[in-house]
Amino acid sequence: MITGFRSPRVVTFDPQISDASNPLGAVRDGCIAFENGRVSFIGNEVDYPESRSFPLVPLITPGLIDAHTHACWVGSRHDEYAIRMAGGDYRDIASRGGGIVASSRAIATATEHEIESTLLARLKRMSSLGVTTCEVKSGYGLLPELELKQLRAIANVAARRDAPSVVSTFLALHSVPAEYKSNRAEYISTVRDVTLPSAVGLAQFVDAYVDASAFTVDEARMIATLARSMGLGVRLHVGQFADVGGAELAADLGALSADHLEHVSARGIDALAASGTAACLLPVASFTLGQSPPPVATLREAGIAMVVASDANPGTAPTESLPLALALAVRLYGLTPEEALIGSTRNAARSLGLNDRGMLQIGARADVVAWDLVHEHALIQPWGTSKALTVVVEGVAIAGTSLS
Amino acid sequence: MITGFRSPRVVTFDPQISDASNPLGAVRDGCIAFENGRVSFIGNEVDYPESRSFPLVPLITPGLIDAHTHACWVGSRHDEYAIRMAGGDYRDIASRGGGIVASSRAIATATEHEIESTLLARLKRMSSLGVTTCEVKSGYGLLPELELKQLRAIANVAARRDAPSVVSTFLALHSVPAEYKSNRAEYISTVRDVTLPSAVGLAQFVDAYVDASAFTVDEARMIATLARSMGLGVRLHVGQFADVGGAELAADLGALSADHLEHVSARGIDALAASGTAACLLPVASFTLGQSPPPVATLREAGIAMVVASDANPGTAPTESLPLALALAVRLYGLTPEEALIGSTRNAARSLGLNDRGMLQIGARADVVAWDLVHEHALIQPWGTSKALTVVVEGVAIAGTSLS
Repeated sequence: MITGFRSPRVVTFDPQISDASNPLGAVRDGCIAFENGRVSFIGNEVDYPESRSFPLVPLITPGLIDAHTHACWVGSRHDEYAIRMAGGDYRDIASRGGGIVASSRAIATATEHEIESTLLARLKRMSSLGVTTCEVKSGYGLLPELELKQLRAIANVAARRDAPSVVSTFLALHSVPAEYKSNRAEYISTVRDVTLPSAVGLAQFVDAYVDASAFTVDEARMIATLARSMGLGVRLHVGQFADVGGAELAADLGALSADHLEHVSARGIDALAASGTAACLLPVASFTLGQSPPPVATLREAGIAMVVASDANPGTAPTESLPLALALAVRLYGLTPEEALIGSTRNAARSLGLNDRGMLQIGARADVVAWDLVHEHALIQPWGTSKALTVVVEGVAIAGTSLS
Repeated sequence: MITGFRSPRVVTFDPQISDASNPLGAVRDGCIAFENGRVSFIGNEVDYPESRSFPLVPLITPGLIDAHTHACWVGSRHDEYAIRMAGGDYRDIASRGGGIVASSRAIATATEHEIESTLLARLKRMSSLGVTTCEVKSGYGLLPELELKQLRAIANVAARRDAPSVVSTFLALHSVPAEYKSNRAEYISTVRDVTLPSAVGLAQFVDAYVDASAFTVDEARMIATLARSMGLGVRLHVGQFADVGGAELAADLGALSADHLEHVSARGIDALAASGTAACLLPVASFTLGQSPPPVATLREAGIAMVVASDANPGTAPTESLPLALALAVRLYGLTPEEALIGSTRNAARSLGLNDRGMLQIGARADVVAWDLVHEHALIQPWGTSKALTVVVEGVAIAGTSLS
């Protein structure tokens, strides 16, 4: 059992001990102690003599939180990536049988156990890079029984103690499946009447893809409003390809996050700011798609909380690395290192409705990473290998060296 | 001891069995067998009945070859990366004590054993991503005794069997050290008369940084010509920031590769084509620096062999991932997946003067990777985690599952 770490640099992300010269609340010559999966002490090591027995590591931060992933996928969509790199778009991909429909076929073919074990292995790789909480969406099943198959697989992984903590999202409206192509309204009714009621016990959030060639504001509003009345939180994909008013909808619904935002109007940004909805930025997807960044400067000026997530998915973001998303957010989107780091810890936690993590303070979950780096700024460099020495979730090491 | 693999897809990279419909010489339902560290069979599994006992893996390729790295560094230059991300240039970095001089101080302070163990650990991480041969440059010592300290550390790691195969390059002219700032000519004489003669027994190549604020064509020509006469091959850093005629020099000297090439004239490209010098592209560095790509289309039309390498270094390419460089080469430079893959296998081997690897054929070194991917195209996706199941160097597994 891990009881704590000593480190020359313990970065708390606690605003109460942050200031302009120490924006992330770093404690020099610090230590952190855990008890029953919670932080029981954090501060200077001289104030906690028991820390002399703790392992000394170069850097301590809260565990990283990946607030937007489609990590529950099986199969391979490598063909599609090559088409995209050659300048093809979703129509070229669809004409070759690719896209969401390919992932849907793969979910239909796989057993629930295969889906679960693929997700578990992927989340373990993701956690080896420092991720301690991961949001995972359904959305590749599309049909009721297949969406629920995905959601059950996610729930089974969420019940484990040897993987990151999982937040499950029912991605209710992702794509209209082939079976309903000629009857879109019937598909949406089926989602409303059949899938959603069963998803409620399995997921914490509902999500919908609100975009030009996806779902309308009205369709998403109907499903999300009902889901919210059934106890689910709301998060939405908005403005990835076109601004159809998704940001305003997210604000209206009190969504905790509006995700993508490559295309968003000034009015949409104002609405998000007023509603306190976070902007979840997904730079791996716009890298793959060769897109211009979201209006980061405007989001920043509006005081909107920015989150950075991996968007891990087999099509537009075939990645398993939140740190790579941070590297792209800083280089391609112009976030500062601090913004990227806060966007994958404190802001990510808030955008998932989690108040017990994302910063290190007494009573918080003991979700902690010991890094083989001397400063948190090095976390935004595109290493491509793991710099995590030990990854701790609720006081238990799930990746890296087990410290006993 | 590994004796071979079976795989639905064995990608040989052998031009003799490649054609337009099979550009990388893939063998379906193939197998590969090893004997005494060499490939003893490659072909269809039905033609090699003994293969029934071999492990079945999704995909086999030659090991990846990283032909340009500064992997032999210690310390941390995270401050500098943050300055670069905020738009600062090398002058801002130098004014804060960063840049090559910071790495030089770190090399001076570290023991030879520390340098060696840091390099070994880094090469092991690099190999876990599929790299079986890695070029490693000196160039952070600058002063004779410190350059030789680096080259001895590299040689000690090169002697090991549990790491990738190492090609050592004496980076003779990287930066003028502080001790010689007022006497540049004396520094170059010292490199010529003191460092070079001792480096000859330790390195296979000489390199120099030919650029506007680095070394001139004449300085580099003098050192490289002498080094060549002493038996070293030549490779040069040219045109990273400005075209000062480095490509023409590389061609004149019969260099095996000219590296960077963000800035190169049509005449320089013609010269490289005529001399058969490879163009080694380093997209992680231009990503960090926010630069435009090299003239890939022109290099391609000129018939120049393109290599893609990581440039792993603590300043402009703080990465340990050749696969990430491939992802950036395709997305940011416009290489095709095949070009990126050939550039990190067959062409990389040729640019290091190695004819025994970079493709799989009978008699070649058994440097092989078994991948958890179904197609080689997926290797250019920005996974950020290892997709290598087993990495084999001369028939010995150095990373991933050991197959006995």
